[in-house]
Amino acid sequence: MSNKIKIGIVGYGNLGKGAIEAIKQTQDMELVAIFTRRDPKDLNLNVPNVKTVHISEAIDYKNEIDVMLLCGGSAKDLPEQTPYFASMFNTVDSFDTHAKIPEFYQSVNEVATKNNTTAIISVGWDPGLFSVNRVMADAILPNGENYTFWGKGLSQGHSDAVRRVNGVKNGVQYTIPAEDAIEKVRSGANPELKTAEKHARVCYIVAEEGADKAAIENEIKTMPNYFADYNTDVNFISEEELNQDHTKAPHGGFVIRGGDTGAGNKQIFEFSLKLDSNPEFTASVLVAYARAAYRLNNEKQFGAKTVYDVAPGYISPRSAEELRRDFL
Amino acid sequence: MSNKIKIGIVGYGNLGKGAIEAIKQTQDMELVAIFTRRDPKDLNLNVPNVKTVHISEAIDYKNEIDVMLLCGGSAKDLPEQTPYFASMFNTVDSFDTHAKIPEFYQSVNEVATKNNTTAIISVGWDPGLFSVNRVMADAILPNGENYTFWGKGLSQGHSDAVRRVNGVKNGVQYTIPAEDAIEKVRSGANPELKTAEKHARVCYIVAEEGADKAAIENEIKTMPNYFADYNTDVNFISEEELNQDHTKAPHGGFVIRGGDTGAGNKQIFEFSLKLDSNPEFTASVLVAYARAAYRLNNEKQFGAKTVYDVAPGYISPRSAEELRRDFL
Repeated sequence: MSNKIKIGIVGYGNLGKGAIEAIKQTQDMELVAIFTRRDPKDLNLNVPNVKTVHISEAIDYKNEIDVMLLCGGSAKDLPEQTPYFASMFNTVDSFDTHAKIPEFYQSVNEVATKNNTTAIISVGWDPGLFSVNRVMADAILPNGENYTFWGKGLSQGHSDAVRRVNGVKNGVQYTIPAEDAIEKVRSGANPELKTAEKHARVCYIVAEEGADKAAIENEIKTMPNYFADYNTDVNFISEEELNQDHTKAPHGGFVIRGGDTGAGNKQIFEFSLKLDSNPEFTASVLVAYARAAYRLNNEKQFGAKTVYDVAPGYISPRSAEELRRDFL
Repeated sequence: MSNKIKIGIVGYGNLGKGAIEAIKQTQDMELVAIFTRRDPKDLNLNVPNVKTVHISEAIDYKNEIDVMLLCGGSAKDLPEQTPYFASMFNTVDSFDTHAKIPEFYQSVNEVATKNNTTAIISVGWDPGLFSVNRVMADAILPNGENYTFWGKGLSQGHSDAVRRVNGVKNGVQYTIPAEDAIEKVRSGANPELKTAEKHARVCYIVAEEGADKAAIENEIKTMPNYFADYNTDVNFISEEELNQDHTKAPHGGFVIRGGDTGAGNKQIFEFSLKLDSNPEFTASVLVAYARAAYRLNNEKQFGAKTVYDVAPGYISPRSAEELRRDFL
């Protein structure tokens, strides 16, 4: 048996695949098994020494896995899966339905506390790293204002919306943070900004042959909730272009706080990410926090935790001595 | 008696003055006293209900102060003061002599562990917030490279050096991060960069009347260690201009990590600060971490700690419930 932290992954979508890649980059973790609701034989997993197991058999792995990475979706999977798995395993998940976090926390905390497991919820970059920066900036500069911008990033919901428009064969939508809004915030002016002023929307559309492009453009730009309030740009491209330039899932964004200290000195705090692959980065954050779940559980810190409960040293594979010597 | 966290400040220089201002912005802290090596009467402190006390009488305040903010310098003050005060109080300091952190940690840890106090060392922005970001970025993107840039910022050591040049009446020096180097790093190229390639130096000089400006410029630009290896810009200005435009202490900088995930997807992680007042911001960080020192001590987490040992929630005045609901 190795001394490595033994990891299981639940779910073999983009996030689960990203987690496989992220674990490969670590020295202190090993992947034991992927758990799936599908027939495990259908996964065609090509990773040596990693099993594919039906999700119903997870309980048999209770003593073989230190931390379970829950890579399902927030809408349907995690509200059921996190409490279920937290009854048997330490877990890390990326639950990101902001409004439902308090009740999700309660349900997970109850199970984890009862079963002496540690469940770190809502890990990733937002919620996750962005959340950490919003709180640290707020604590350090009480007299100020937080701003979060998202993008440039592919939005799944908005891409689905444009694809439903009559005459659209295929298409994608990017959310773009508005440069002028960012510059205003960076100046320390703490402006009042509506969401629509903070972001623009850019669509790349493949039209059906003979479709009325002006009508498509108009329908998209006037679509309530999704586009009507935004500065929206619609570009028509060929299917080849779409397949060549728009198959990745880039994302990112900014957390900026402008605050005053003393007699009006402006202090600007900024955190940003520019990601070629949103799911691979999110998975990398989950994997780092799996280390923290393992260590917190060894210290008998049971129950549901968030990124606010995790000291930075706990996510690092390096020793405290090395961190003080080489990184402080 | 209020429920507020009771704070003492040791040292009444720029950092100590910044701490007074930062405490004013909190709701959960109160400043009890300033401790000084000078005659306390000479401080001319104009803050209601705050005492000025000679440093030798600090022991009398053992039961009246929860956390002592040590606002002295790293060269001579803190190596003596932190172990001394950590024998009686919880402390936070900004020790920033990177090479000596391991031995400083040892000496403080010994005293604090023995006396059941909690001493958070090397707090501020670098070391401090930059250190947190270097470690989190390294943990999340193991296959990458960290870069730290400083500036635009006033450098005290380099300003002293230009003022020693023959014919210079007064002057200041700013360290400027090189835009082209930052752009290279932001592109994810992970370039090899010498310190001199990462930063430029800009001097604003008031020359003595009749001084040979070309000779001054040449002497500065060829000064070994300080300027010779750098792209250095020398500007001559009037004394009025110096007093008007160059009396603040701005600073800031960037921590950037470019890393690869999966099959070569670039992921860029960036943290930056743009500060009108370096000492006021540093003091604001110290004050936030005083909250953590107080809480860790209540949990009997004794000994020396660094920012790596402090979960983000511990520096926030807000409850865990509020953080999960409004910030996550």
